Amino acid sequence: MTEFHGIIPPIITPFKENGDVDYDAFVHNIEKWNNDQLAGYLVLGSNSEAPFLSREEKLKLIELTASNAKAGRTILAGTGLESARETVRLTNDAAKRGAQAALVLTPSYYIDQMDDPALIQYFKEVADHADIPILIYNVPKFTHLNVSINVAKALGEHPNVAGMKDSSGNVEQLSVFFKSASENFQVIVGTAGALLPALKIGIRGAIPALANAAPNHCAHVQRFFEEGLIQRAEELQQRLTPVNTAVTATYGVTGLKYASTLMGYHGGFVRNPLRELNEKAKNDIRRILGEAGVLGPGS
Amino acid sequence: MTEFHGIIPPIITPFKENGDVDYDAFVHNIEKWNNDQLAGYLVLGSNSEAPFLSREEKLKLIELTASNAKAGRTILAGTGLESARETVRLTNDAAKRGAQAALVLTPSYYIDQMDDPALIQYFKEVADHADIPILIYNVPKFTHLNVSINVAKALGEHPNVAGMKDSSGNVEQLSVFFKSASENFQVIVGTAGALLPALKIGIRGAIPALANAAPNHCAHVQRFFEEGLIQRAEELQQRLTPVNTAVTATYGVTGLKYASTLMGYHGGFVRNPLRELNEKAKNDIRRILGEAGVLGPGS
Amino acid sequence: MTEFHGIIPPIITPFKENGDVDYDAFVHNIEKWNNDQLAGYLVLGSNSEAPFLSREEKLKLIELTASNAKAGRTILAGTGLESARETVRLTNDAAKRGAQAALVLTPSYYIDQMDDPALIQYFKEVADHADIPILIYNVPKFTHLNVSINVAKALGEHPNVAGMKDSSGNVEQLSVFFKSASENFQVIVGTAGALLPALKIGIRGAIPALANAAPNHCAHVQRFFEEGLIQRAEELQQRLTPVNTAVTATYGVTGLKYASTLMGYHGGFVRNPLRELNEKAKNDIRRILGEAGVLGPGS
Amino acid sequence: MTEFHGIIPPIITPFKENGDVDYDAFVHNIEKWNNDQLAGYLVLGSNSEAPFLSREEKLKLIELTASNAKAGRTILAGTGLESARETVRLTNDAAKRGAQAALVLTPSYYIDQMDDPALIQYFKEVADHADIPILIYNVPKFTHLNVSINVAKALGEHPNVAGMKDSSGNVEQLSVFFKSASENFQVIVGTAGALLPALKIGIRGAIPALANAAPNHCAHVQRFFEEGLIQRAEELQQRLTPVNTAVTATYGVTGLKYASTLMGYHGGFVRNPLRELNEKAKNDIRRILGEAGVLGPGS
Repeated sequence: MTEFHGIIPPIITPFKENGDVDYDAFVHNIEKWNNDQLAGYLVLGSNSEAPFLSREEKLKLIELTASNAKAGRTILAGTGLESARETVRLTNDAAKRGAQAALVLTPSYYIDQMDDPALIQYFKEVADHADIPILIYNVPKFTHLNVSINVAKALGEHPNVAGMKDSSGNVEQLSVFFKSASENFQVIVGTAGALLPALKIGIRGAIPALANAAPNHCAHVQRFFEEGLIQRAEELQQRLTPVNTAVTATYGVTGLKYASTLMGYHGGFVRNPLRELNEKAKNDIRRILGEAGVLGPGS
Repeated sequence: MTEFHGIIPPIITPFKENGDVDYDAFVHNIEKWNNDQLAGYLVLGSNSEAPFLSREEKLKLIELTASNAKAGRTILAGTGLESARETVRLTNDAAKRGAQAALVLTPSYYIDQMDDPALIQYFKEVADHADIPILIYNVPKFTHLNVSINVAKALGEHPNVAGMKDSSGNVEQLSVFFKSASENFQVIVGTAGALLPALKIGIRGAIPALANAAPNHCAHVQRFFEEGLIQRAEELQQRLTPVNTAVTATYGVTGLKYASTLMGYHGGFVRNPLRELNEKAKNDIRRILGEAGVLGPGS
Repeated sequence: MTEFHGIIPPIITPFKENGDVDYDAFVHNIEKWNNDQLAGYLVLGSNSEAPFLSREEKLKLIELTASNAKAGRTILAGTGLESARETVRLTNDAAKRGAQAALVLTPSYYIDQMDDPALIQYFKEVADHADIPILIYNVPKFTHLNVSINVAKALGEHPNVAGMKDSSGNVEQLSVFFKSASENFQVIVGTAGALLPALKIGIRGAIPALANAAPNHCAHVQRFFEEGLIQRAEELQQRLTPVNTAVTATYGVTGLKYASTLMGYHGGFVRNPLRELNEKAKNDIRRILGEAGVLGPGS
Repeated sequence: MTEFHGIIPPIITPFKENGDVDYDAFVHNIEKWNNDQLAGYLVLGSNSEAPFLSREEKLKLIELTASNAKAGRTILAGTGLESARETVRLTNDAAKRGAQAALVLTPSYYIDQMDDPALIQYFKEVADHADIPILIYNVPKFTHLNVSINVAKALGEHPNVAGMKDSSGNVEQLSVFFKSASENFQVIVGTAGALLPALKIGIRGAIPALANAAPNHCAHVQRFFEEGLIQRAEELQQRLTPVNTAVTATYGVTGLKYASTLMGYHGGFVRNPLRELNEKAKNDIRRILGEAGVLGPGS
């Protein structure tokens, strides 16, 4: 099974002003990221506005990612839907388009029923029938539920469960997941704000939103850490954290897309109901990128 | 524009044990409901397990509802998706299959961004481009957001917004929505537990889960009320409330499907990640239906 | 044991501009309410800003309430604190100052531990040692927990538990509590927005914030209902609901105090961290009271 | 103003089986901690069951802490109550008993009104009138609100605001608070799970629950870090994290008290509504302490 090692951006989906997917801009981004120090691509994560896309758009984006990615990069696709059945169907269609593993969001609509046995039953069925390995995707800020250690343990032994991406932002939880799960259950950190703490726990893979706009900065944190340049890793992590806050907690995916545009990628428009940023927000993001040295002469 | 007057069940979707939609059972249910005192059908609401269905299944279910419904009954379809664009597309395809109005769930995935302007922007775009009138669908227990009176007012004047279904269960909120919105903005109550209080406010339409299993009991509450038999309406409402609690708060859609089966409809299986009821739960539902006089000799 | 029948205002605490309790204003209010159609007084409920008061202030306010209340009116005191021990101590001191029953808020600070057995253990200990009967006080908007029917059932048989005040605003829940609990377990409605629906369920007591500002209007809803003048009860309930929303959900206790001032009671200042209303809010409340006919020539 | 550097346990309050505070056990603990590598004591934090204590008990515990603490240790007292007025009063009484700074919990009962201006107004008034410096205490899991960076900035310049204890567990937030606030605004980490990450940000003070049971282990993390023995710091942090999870998230203060007992301190009983641990929970804690090498031959 694939080992997740390195930085994988959860790539954004640029839209045209009329709301169409801007596939040319999408390919431009991949080509540019191909020159960056990345281990792969996650297409159709939360930062791709996946919930806004049609099935056809999703499959085309997977295909474009797989066909344009530099050789050797891992292709991950977000395929979680509310039912195990539809998730299996999308996962296997994604596999046909080149996805090598699937990131499967926890179902959450009928939240009162989504207890541990329900989640275990769901992920077990998906894993049993998926043609590619799956990763559990835990992102409480969107789903309003937090995967328990019991769910992780129950699924950790399944041969087709590769592990989990945890975007809770809680380092203690990452550590508990990392230690408690089986050896084959990989824990991937889902936010750049916890990147270095996660590496120190022993985690080796990251899927941080920030890697859209600042892929090499994220990669350098990991490289410095792995080369034993702890001090430099720390300094860079400290510089990146406020940037990460801006493109996640403060301004969300709209902010991430604008930051990506500032860095030479094509952010494009968001889809309604998301709203474009006003000038004040744009200036704020530009300033934060500048202060962090991500944007500008010293970047 | 359609006036919503009477009881409209948010109809369940029976599945076979293998997870396929049981279309025959679905049609059986409609034929049986055709003999009940109902004003129409809502297909693809929360109780239909709509989030678990494929687009094709959704369209087929709309078609079957429209083609099997008794003449004169209103056909409503749940078409809300996270983006305005996909919602418009599904709404207009639903219209082609016979839907006469669309129930549009509030988007909620990017919840921190779903403030009033975002919701207004979303519903305005959907209403502008939908070929049929739309109803806002407010169901905080699933979406974790509650539509504000400002959103209702802003959309109340739109010629293609028919009104809103409120499933908050909060009678005071229903009353405020009812009074504050424009004359053309219809407020529909979304839970049988608040049926009679809603009627007293002046609300004339209801889309209660319970109407799957006990359509005539719901209809009788309204008929008694409208005929001035207030005491009988009250008594019946009191009897129905615990049944409603059982098939919504306590056991969810799985409980509703089992209660519907007990009443002669075809509940069928649920889709994973929902789990089938154990015997204790089934006995509890049977007992509650019996005590309410909904099931059994006196029903 | 006392039967709770009629309207009991959860009385406000007027403060001077310097933050001292304005005991004269407090007594003025009671004297004025003595002329209104009320069944008693709840001192130290949520609308009294009880969490802001010292123990000495609390005891003095109980004493003043008991000594100034019209003969025959029930004196209730809010005595719930986080530990059973401190709650018992305050309850029994309250009893010495004239409280005839105690309203005991659910503990909630250590919320993850506040499961059913913890709540049952807590209320059982309080009831065992209280010199006066206790009522459970369920107010999820402040405590973030909702008392379950199992807790109500477990405590319903205790000879010193008189019942519960439910301020959830959920009529269905009120109904389930009312039906499931024992005969001696009285359910009291905690919000004027649900007053008439509660009466119809069979509930006979209400402790609504609105009864501070509009005691007779609340009392008339109940009188009309009990005299069979259902239509008049309905009309009045409909008029009062938006007023209730203004003095609870929209503007909170600060709004309630201002509305009370407009109606001739002494609202006084709030304590920090609450903030005084701005002019816009004041105008809004005045307008809402006017439109409802509560304030003004026709009131 | 005091600089917070080092580990300060938020000390537990041992109760006797009859619920009385066990002051002898309390003093025993302080005497034992006096031999540990600690910078001070926080009395009346969340782990002291402060919400369960009377005012008299609180003041006595402060006095005992101050009079029994080893010379040179900082005495902090938790004095936050819902109103600014009562908080000032308790803070100044605490100062008279020997508290050198006060930890002030965010008010949260009237949560809908607790916006930034309300919190700023509250802390400003407390700081203006407190005889000792105050620290803002942010603990969202108990208060259901999270202090914003704007509140921290607004208060950061106040001469009597020493800083803030953040127990959110979110390292990114700690970092943003640390960087954005003024130089005189100290950020203190409130959970051992984030201890080393916090130190790396530049934070120098910690008030972690775990320091009750394992004070020197916590202190060693900091000492190793400050001596540049990063690898040893990392290893120890990794060992401690699951212990911390057990005595906070999993078993709460009851678990913390039991772990403290196992380590030779006097945990004592909890007060109702908290419940004593069952044997399974006790064994689990013992096992976790053992596996971490905190308890046992190698500890």
